[in-house]
Amino acid sequence: MPTDVVTMDKIVALCKRRGFVFPSSEIYGGLASTYDYGHYGVLLKRNVKDAWWRAMLQERDDIVALDAAILMSPKVWEASGHLASFTDPLVDCRRCGQRFRADHLGELECPEKPSKHPGEGPNCDLTEARDFNLMFETTIGPVKESGAEIYLRPETAQGIFVDFPQVMQTARKKPPFGIAQIGKSFRNEITPGNFVFRTREFEQMEMEFFVPPPDAPRWFEHWLDARMSWYVDLGIRPDHLRLRPHEEDELSHYSSATSDVEYLFPIGWSELEGIANRGDFDLRAHARHSGKKLEYFDSATNERYVPHVIEPAAGADRATLAFMVDAYDEEDVEGETRTVLRLHPQLAPVKVAVLPLVRKDGLPELAREAYEALKPVVQAEYDEGGSIGRRYRRQDEIGTPWGVTVDHQTTEDRTVTLRDRDSLEQTRVAIDELPDEILRRLREPWRSPKLDA
Amino acid sequence: MPTDVVTMDKIVALCKRRGFVFPSSEIYGGLASTYDYGHYGVLLKRNVKDAWWRAMLQERDDIVALDAAILMSPKVWEASGHLASFTDPLVDCRRCGQRFRADHLGELECPEKPSKHPGEGPNCDLTEARDFNLMFETTIGPVKESGAEIYLRPETAQGIFVDFPQVMQTARKKPPFGIAQIGKSFRNEITPGNFVFRTREFEQMEMEFFVPPPDAPRWFEHWLDARMSWYVDLGIRPDHLRLRPHEEDELSHYSSATSDVEYLFPIGWSELEGIANRGDFDLRAHARHSGKKLEYFDSATNERYVPHVIEPAAGADRATLAFMVDAYDEEDVEGETRTVLRLHPQLAPVKVAVLPLVRKDGLPELAREAYEALKPVVQAEYDEGGSIGRRYRRQDEIGTPWGVTVDHQTTEDRTVTLRDRDSLEQTRVAIDELPDEILRRLREPWRSPKLDA
Repeated sequence: MPTDVVTMDKIVALCKRRGFVFPSSEIYGGLASTYDYGHYGVLLKRNVKDAWWRAMLQERDDIVALDAAILMSPKVWEASGHLASFTDPLVDCRRCGQRFRADHLGELECPEKPSKHPGEGPNCDLTEARDFNLMFETTIGPVKESGAEIYLRPETAQGIFVDFPQVMQTARKKPPFGIAQIGKSFRNEITPGNFVFRTREFEQMEMEFFVPPPDAPRWFEHWLDARMSWYVDLGIRPDHLRLRPHEEDELSHYSSATSDVEYLFPIGWSELEGIANRGDFDLRAHARHSGKKLEYFDSATNERYVPHVIEPAAGADRATLAFMVDAYDEEDVEGETRTVLRLHPQLAPVKVAVLPLVRKDGLPELAREAYEALKPVVQAEYDEGGSIGRRYRRQDEIGTPWGVTVDHQTTEDRTVTLRDRDSLEQTRVAIDELPDEILRRLREPWRSPKLDA
Repeated sequence: MPTDVVTMDKIVALCKRRGFVFPSSEIYGGLASTYDYGHYGVLLKRNVKDAWWRAMLQERDDIVALDAAILMSPKVWEASGHLASFTDPLVDCRRCGQRFRADHLGELECPEKPSKHPGEGPNCDLTEARDFNLMFETTIGPVKESGAEIYLRPETAQGIFVDFPQVMQTARKKPPFGIAQIGKSFRNEITPGNFVFRTREFEQMEMEFFVPPPDAPRWFEHWLDARMSWYVDLGIRPDHLRLRPHEEDELSHYSSATSDVEYLFPIGWSELEGIANRGDFDLRAHARHSGKKLEYFDSATNERYVPHVIEPAAGADRATLAFMVDAYDEEDVEGETRTVLRLHPQLAPVKVAVLPLVRKDGLPELAREAYEALKPVVQAEYDEGGSIGRRYRRQDEIGTPWGVTVDHQTTEDRTVTLRDRDSLEQTRVAIDELPDEILRRLREPWRSPKLDA
């Protein structure tokens, strides 16, 4: 089982070692479960977001973009129900002074070891559960006065709902159509954890798809299929993905059907994306609270209705983590462990590395030339430090699909070796054809070699 | 003077009309000076950020990426000086109850008209000035307890400084090298305003360039040039840009030299970007407060030093606004006003629009075919609604550089008319060659026609 091989510890260690992701404010001891993305992490996550953007927006006719502010009117959260009920139940232990989620006590270890919650040891003395709202609160304007309380959005979705009338009108769309948004959201989680799987600050890729009510079930199915395919097309192994329909008693109050796209993380099957049929709950709630019409009027048929909404809501951080976990591979090469990220080339942080075989005989100059030609076209890297084997290990570890080696033959015929990360196949290519060759390979369909392993 | 022609009102109206940018939470009356980007606004701003990214990262060898969290340890703001001194002086008017910036009183009108601040009318009775911190404060964790106060970052820069050691090590860089970051920052401004020019939530494009101390002046000059060129290369008219060196008494405490890149906005010359020589102020401050070494050790020379820092800090929202303002044009065409955004094609939200001349005779089918071929390559739009002239007006207004008209000749020879937004020149191109032709034109150098006007 891959879960045995790819542990979260290995991923965390790789992320730290190569600067993909590391704890925020680390020189000050960090800030609980907050992470910064370093160079390769930024590039990887950016590619994940771009791939989502491409699939959801550029390649479709029926979805438009929105980037709503993180700070919104507090009335939004009153209408959406977040102020009243976006809460977790909390209990305090009167002995150790710590707070825990009442519904997750079993998972936690009491700091007063060896006893365990709930009530497992002799030291536990728990209070009744109280509701704790997960929205971060702040105040806007020059003084902390009543009425100036605002919240960091806990989801990007509500920005889409309240802007629905403007967007529909200015984008000249009518149902079925969608509004897509990528952006940060914030939840003051009581128990964040598992690396970037659950953090208090996180980035969402959400799309709300507005449809004529009778078509909602059909579109729900459409989005289940489309979103599963997206992950598979980008290299996630199908047997590491599953759709888990929510049970009746698990459904949110606003949803008539929800399925989670789950991925087999090292921590077990966990939610990667939620796809919900939210009906007309949100538009009706905002219409009621704002007194504005949030509906579609079809001037051709004189029909007026409140669209139903299908929402595929993905996490950019979770998706990035899943792509890394699924790509992570180790193999023995001559007694050494070679760590390789077998990322889809479209997601790889660096597409091509240019390496002069030795740092003399004019090879660095030729390698530089190849690198300069590649750089305007794709994210490229030049590396002349250390043995060639070590330099390839470095590139394998960050998932660079192709390596260019400039050797002595290059000085004679201006060809270089182009090495494939997965097959390790080497072919000779003319320097002048490199950019086109890399672009050609990037366009080719890709299949994870792990599928055949 | 262009400031007479392009008013902020016209830009705001266009933004609202075509859904580029509009007030956030508008159905609830908005949230002061907070804006949402709609479809074309998202695409435009995204292109601005991508152009920055390309110039600052992909095309250089000496800059790496970072995406630090918005929520950071409060110790960061203690060390940086923001907790103590990132303040504005505030005064209250005892009569009207309003608060004002003590240093900006002259600009404000007292709500108790007709009298004006400061002390211009008989109704003013101002308190002494008090310092007001501009950071948004919130609390992390399940209860509002002492020590849990954290802040929304007021700038992305500090994330770069505190992560300097990790990034330098994992990215295998040494000075001179830079760390670039795009992300949201938050300032609880007392007097935000002028559309997206000054908002409480805004997006920064910041880069900190770490250099050996003796090289700082030279690199400062380098970045002044490089950043000015960036705007000009993307179409801003040079006579609308200027570098304004800060006066001695205007310099921040951390800076030995700062120049603002100013743009001639409709509100007058205003800051677009600040380029500062921050010396070693930040790294030393964080080293002192954290007890960690924030320095570079050169193992070859056994030299150890704290790098100096050159910071080009740009605003993504301001840059987007400037590009729109500079591109805005009106001309009379047959008695009607034609509004055109003469955006650099690289920045244009939509690159090409495909328009069937009429909605019959097989033209929509052929137009669809052309559109489907273009869509995977560039952001494209298909429009068959309304007269051809009206459809072109719509595209001109959002700055689409090229329009494809499918007419009756297309049914005979599969060629279409390709229209240039600026020259209005029309050429016939084969459908099958359209994607390559658009890509070719996108790569061509571009010169604003307004330069020759």
